[in-house]
Amino acid sequence: MDKFIIIGERIHCISPVIKEALANRDEAPILERAKAQLDSGATYLDLNIGPAERDGEELMQWGVKLLQENFDNVPLALDTANQKAIVAGIEVYNRSKGKPIINSADAGDRLDNIRLAAENDAIVIALCSKQGVPRDNEERMQYCQEMLEYGMGLGLDESDMWFDPLTLVIKGMQEKQVEFLEFIRQLSDMGLMSVAGLSNASNGMPKEVRPTVDSVLTAMAIECGLSAAILNPNDKHLMDVVKTAEVILNRTLYADSYLEL
Amino acid sequence: MDKFIIIGERIHCISPVIKEALANRDEAPILERAKAQLDSGATYLDLNIGPAERDGEELMQWGVKLLQENFDNVPLALDTANQKAIVAGIEVYNRSKGKPIINSADAGDRLDNIRLAAENDAIVIALCSKQGVPRDNEERMQYCQEMLEYGMGLGLDESDMWFDPLTLVIKGMQEKQVEFLEFIRQLSDMGLMSVAGLSNASNGMPKEVRPTVDSVLTAMAIECGLSAAILNPNDKHLMDVVKTAEVILNRTLYADSYLEL
Repeated sequence: MDKFIIIGERIHCISPVIKEALANRDEAPILERAKAQLDSGATYLDLNIGPAERDGEELMQWGVKLLQENFDNVPLALDTANQKAIVAGIEVYNRSKGKPIINSADAGDRLDNIRLAAENDAIVIALCSKQGVPRDNEERMQYCQEMLEYGMGLGLDESDMWFDPLTLVIKGMQEKQVEFLEFIRQLSDMGLMSVAGLSNASNGMPKEVRPTVDSVLTAMAIECGLSAAILNPNDKHLMDVVKTAEVILNRTLYADSYLEL
Repeated sequence: MDKFIIIGERIHCISPVIKEALANRDEAPILERAKAQLDSGATYLDLNIGPAERDGEELMQWGVKLLQENFDNVPLALDTANQKAIVAGIEVYNRSKGKPIINSADAGDRLDNIRLAAENDAIVIALCSKQGVPRDNEERMQYCQEMLEYGMGLGLDESDMWFDPLTLVIKGMQEKQVEFLEFIRQLSDMGLMSVAGLSNASNGMPKEVRPTVDSVLTAMAIECGLSAAILNPNDKHLMDVVKTAEVILNRTLYADSYLEL
């Protein structure tokens, strides 16, 4: 199996620092977070510019160029509800290190982002939901199939659709976690790519508990065959878990110093 | 699924403190370790008296009575190569909190311990090996089937045979770990009980790496359906992982304070 793919989540307009830097086209804070994430093992960087309804196209192009010019054409996930901004970002995107990822489509209102991926030879993160939380894995699989058929009908390769089972908050939806893990295994058994924002599961938990929950869920999800995760690569504990999972699953050669590599 | 079963491993003659206490019938060090393990969540205590060829029968009876009288008939795993000592231990064993576990049988020289379990209405840990390390899961499954047939032929209930896939050292047998996890899943899918001494996997690794490896492998193994583990319940980090896995798999109700319970 291929190596686990890490999409760094820290360039996100929900962070006040990044929000301000995006608004002012201030390069330094964005470059700093990009470097920190890449140094810690991120493969992709997520570039979340928020809804960006006013100047999304120009902003996304600025962000894509800034990151790719400074970090050897690092592959990016273009993360916004503004479709025009995504298209604009792809126009200036350099593919030498990997296709752009469109973040994200679903089986409902955002289905059209699958078309966008097909037309632009991009990868798309496809949330297995339509309206709200899927009731069960049957519903998840129905949405997955709908999106798969739709994308393949448009010529999208199935390996370019990364299905997200939708991580649910443990506190409140504790009984849904087994299904979440089972669904990752189903995707893996079907030979499909999967991706998840695993840290959502520990939302609302005490700060001292979250690292343990994040790391156990991550270890379990990787064991189930998860292909990629959107996470914070600067969480050293979590990255140690990812590296260890890769060693146990024999995708990285063990060395006594493997946690420092 | 039932709760994960923890067999505390710390009363073991490999520890100099315990070795001396066993030799001198010194109660205090043994009671201290027993209490610490039970306070931290052990269900069973392993009582390993070593080969004990000379005075094994008397020693095992002393240990069984000591632990059960002081800790409300705590269920025990009787751990020795001396069959007579196991039989002697069972003679004085109080079953009110659970059957004794015989630790352990295999498909080779120690097959007879399955008969011992059948004749004494005990649980037996059945190592899926015959001579040395099983080559692959086909071989593991062959030994498992041999032991299962042998035990059931003697009237042993299949739920009283806890199959141990044999934990292998990552450093040196890294490529065998995926099979190890898959075998646990196979046992689980077959409805069989499984047990493992997970910390063996990190043997020989640097001290600072072992806790991460132990916890990731434990999370993965529990996700695969492992029923029980022989481990150190006084490793707080590892127990946090076990408790968290139980929360994620919905076997323990989440509370913000669950790691302190």
